[in-house]
Amino acid sequence: MYGYIGSMMAKPGKRDEVIAIMLEGVDGLRSVGCLQYTVGASSADEVTIWTCEVWGTKEQHDASLQLAETKEAISRAMPLIAGDFTRFETEVRGGLGLGKT
Amino acid sequence: MYGYIGSMMAKPGKRDEVIAIMLEGVDGLRSVGCLQYTVGASSADEVTIWTCEVWGTKEQHDASLQLAETKEAISRAMPLIAGDFTRFETEVRGGLGLGKT
Repeated sequence: MYGYIGSMMAKPGKRDEVIAIMLEGVDGLRSVGCLQYTVGASSADEVTIWTCEVWGTKEQHDASLQLAETKEAISRAMPLIAGDFTRFETEVRGGLGLGKT
Repeated sequence: MYGYIGSMMAKPGKRDEVIAIMLEGVDGLRSVGCLQYTVGASSADEVTIWTCEVWGTKEQHDASLQLAETKEAISRAMPLIAGDFTRFETEVRGGLGLGKT
């Protein structure tokens, strides 16, 4: 399983709006190989957004970024994002909530 | 929902052993309020471990650290860990794999 952990900063006052866009298409993710997808608002400040994702494979994750609905959502979110992206990739070894329990 | 994202570095050659310890008690976590718990081995190096957790509340997360089995597992893992801990807390806004879908 492929794990993706990332953060980014929304522009001031725009975090809720960015998070809402990020959660719009969540129901469709399962059919393209997503096992887990979580969006959280950092407790440390008012702008940072953290995302944790688990996919069957990295290829499934990468392919999801090419979907028309994903591209459309990204195009709406980008003007609301200040930047400061971080990205950490893992080989997921196990856990709870991966669709098996 | 309370989100916890953390990383740490295992001592060289000990990452698999630490991850195995971290996954031992995973089935018991649901009964104490855990909605998601994922352990991954960083793809960037041979020692870093990332954990993503979602709990109903922060209090449930904190209480889980006081369980006898948790303390026992931590005591076995600690000698295998080099340190370099990071910790990010979030208010989880939604996602996939949170036990509702």
